[in-house]
Amino acid sequence: MTLNLSELRFGDELLKRGFAKMTKGGVIMDVTTAEQAVIAEKAGAVSVMALERVPSDIRAAGGVARMADPEKIKEIMNAVSIPVMAKVRIGHISEGLVLQQLGVDMLDESEVLTPADPFFHIYKKDLTIPVVCGARSIQEAVRRILEGAAMIRTKGEAGTGNIIEAVRHIRMVNEGIKIIKTLSNEELIKAARNIASSYSILRHNVSKDLFGAEDYLGEFDLYSGLSLEAIEKEAVKVLKDIKRLDRLPVVNFAAGGVATPSDGALMMKLGTDGVFVGSGIFKSKDPEKMARAVVEAVENYEDYKLIGDVSSNLVGMPGIEIENIPPEQKLQERGW
Amino acid sequence: MTLNLSELRFGDELLKRGFAKMTKGGVIMDVTTAEQAVIAEKAGAVSVMALERVPSDIRAAGGVARMADPEKIKEIMNAVSIPVMAKVRIGHISEGLVLQQLGVDMLDESEVLTPADPFFHIYKKDLTIPVVCGARSIQEAVRRILEGAAMIRTKGEAGTGNIIEAVRHIRMVNEGIKIIKTLSNEELIKAARNIASSYSILRHNVSKDLFGAEDYLGEFDLYSGLSLEAIEKEAVKVLKDIKRLDRLPVVNFAAGGVATPSDGALMMKLGTDGVFVGSGIFKSKDPEKMARAVVEAVENYEDYKLIGDVSSNLVGMPGIEIENIPPEQKLQERGW
Repeated sequence: MTLNLSELRFGDELLKRGFAKMTKGGVIMDVTTAEQAVIAEKAGAVSVMALERVPSDIRAAGGVARMADPEKIKEIMNAVSIPVMAKVRIGHISEGLVLQQLGVDMLDESEVLTPADPFFHIYKKDLTIPVVCGARSIQEAVRRILEGAAMIRTKGEAGTGNIIEAVRHIRMVNEGIKIIKTLSNEELIKAARNIASSYSILRHNVSKDLFGAEDYLGEFDLYSGLSLEAIEKEAVKVLKDIKRLDRLPVVNFAAGGVATPSDGALMMKLGTDGVFVGSGIFKSKDPEKMARAVVEAVENYEDYKLIGDVSSNLVGMPGIEIENIPPEQKLQERGW
Repeated sequence: MTLNLSELRFGDELLKRGFAKMTKGGVIMDVTTAEQAVIAEKAGAVSVMALERVPSDIRAAGGVARMADPEKIKEIMNAVSIPVMAKVRIGHISEGLVLQQLGVDMLDESEVLTPADPFFHIYKKDLTIPVVCGARSIQEAVRRILEGAAMIRTKGEAGTGNIIEAVRHIRMVNEGIKIIKTLSNEELIKAARNIASSYSILRHNVSKDLFGAEDYLGEFDLYSGLSLEAIEKEAVKVLKDIKRLDRLPVVNFAAGGVATPSDGALMMKLGTDGVFVGSGIFKSKDPEKMARAVVEAVENYEDYKLIGDVSSNLVGMPGIEIENIPPEQKLQERGW
C-alpha cells in the first residue's frame, strides 16, 4: 500500500480518521528493528509499530516501559515505505509531541507502556497526527473518540498470545453498538452523562481532600479546558454517530493476543476492520512465514481452505493463560 | 547560576522563599559523591541534593534512612559552587539544626528518609535556612507552607523511574488551586478548619487513651505553640494567597519518578517551576549525558525537536511499576 505521507501526516479530524482508514482490512505488526520492519513490509503489513521491545518481552522484563528511543524509530522509518506508528505512554503529551515532531505517521496511546497519567488520557485534538487508543467497551471507545482518537483497537491482553480477552472486548463493543442503535435521544443523553461523569474523578478527589467531603464540585473545566457539559455534548455526538452508522465512527482494529492466522480471521469475522499483531509474529518460530500467513488469513478471513494451508507447519508463540497473570499485571486494566 | 550565598543563606520568610525562587526553571539533582556533584554542576543543575544513597538504592536496601554523614555533605559542598541541599527526616528538628549549622543552603524534609515524627513535620519557622517539603495535594501543600516551607515539591513515588504518581499529584494540586480560586470567604474558612483539624490527631489519640473517648480536646496549643485557632488563621492566610496569586505562594517543583527528558518536559508543561531528579540521573546508563539531556528538556520543555534529539541513544533507569510496590513501601504515604 502506498500513501502520500506528506499530504496525510497532518490535518484535522477528517484527515486523521481518513489516514487510519487506509489501513482497513490489514495487519499492523510490532517491530523492534529495521530488519523486522522490512520483513513485515514484505509480508504485506499495512503499517508497522516501532517498539523497543514487543509486549511479551515488556511483560517478562517488568519495570517502566516508555516511548522508544527516537534513534530506533528513525532507523525503522528509514527502512520501510509503509506508515510507521509508535507507542506513547497513556497521558504523556510531551512524549506524544516528541514523536510527532520526529515524523511518525500515527501514535498508539498504549497500555502496553507504563501509564503516565492516572486521571486522563492525552487530549488527542492537541496533536496533528492521528492517534489510536485501546478500548474494552463501548464506553471506553466513546471516551477515546471524544478525546480525538482517530482509530480504536479493542484491547486484548497484550503479550499473551491468548485471544480470549480480544474476543471479550470486541463482543463488549459490538453489544454496545447493538444497544445504542435502539436508544431514544433521552437514553443517549443519559449514557453520555454517565460517560462524562468519569472525567470528574480528579475533581471529586480534590474536593474530598480540601473539605473532607466529596460534595463540592463547582462549575469548572474537568478535562483539557472542557466543562462537564461540553464533554457530555461531545459524548452525545459520538453516540449519535454510532447509532447512525451502526458501528464506531472510526476504524476499529483488534489488538492483544492475536497469535495465529485463525486468530486474525476470528477477529475479522467478529467485525473488526483489521488486526494488530504484537509478539505473535516475532516470537513465533518462523516470523516471515507467520507474518505472511496472518496477512493472508486477515485478508481472506472466510477462506478456510487457505487459512488451513497457511497454518500448516506453523508454530505460534507459546503464550500465557490469563488465569496465571496476577491482576495487577493485567495490561488491559490500565487507562480505563 | 551564581548566587550570593552569604546574603541568601539566612533570613526571614521572604528571603527564604526568594532563595528557593532562584532555582526556578531548573533541575535539582541527587548526588552521593563530590564527583557526581561536579557532573551535575557541569550539566547545568541549579542545585544538588547531598545524599548517602539515591532513592532507588534506599528503596532496595530497606532499613532506616537518616540524614547523610556530615563529612560527605562537606565534601560535596567543597566540590561545587551551586547551592547544596540536604535531606532531613520528617519531624527531626535536631537533624535539621545540625545540617543548618553545617552550612547547607537548603533542607529537604523528605519522605525518602524514614520519618522521625508520626504526628508533626518540623516547624520550619524555627530554622533560618529555607526548607522544601513534599505534597500530594493542595491540603498537604497548605500545611507545609503554614509550617514555614519556602518551597514545595509535588511528590511522586521516589526511586521508581515511574512518572505516574508525580502527574497524579501535580494534577491534584492544580485542581485544588482551581477550586480555591472560586471559593467564598466562608468556604475558605471551612477548608482552613478542615486543614487545621489534621493537627489535632495527637490530642485525639491522647484523649481517647485517657478517657476511652475522643471528645476531650481542651483549649491548648496543638503544634509548636500554635492553638487550633492560630493554625486555622495561618491556613486561611495561605489559602487567600493561593486565591490571589492563582498558584502556590512558593516555588513548586516536581519530584519522584522523573527519569527521562520527556518526563521533565511533561512536568513543566503541567505547570511545575522546575524538577528534582533523584535516581533518574545516576541510575541511567550514561549519567553525564542524561543529566545534560534532562536540563535541556526542562529549560526548553516545548522544543520537541530538541527533546527528541537529546533523547536519542539515551537509556533511562529500569524503573518499577507502582502496582508492584506493596502499600506499606510507598514512600509518598509518609508525612501526610
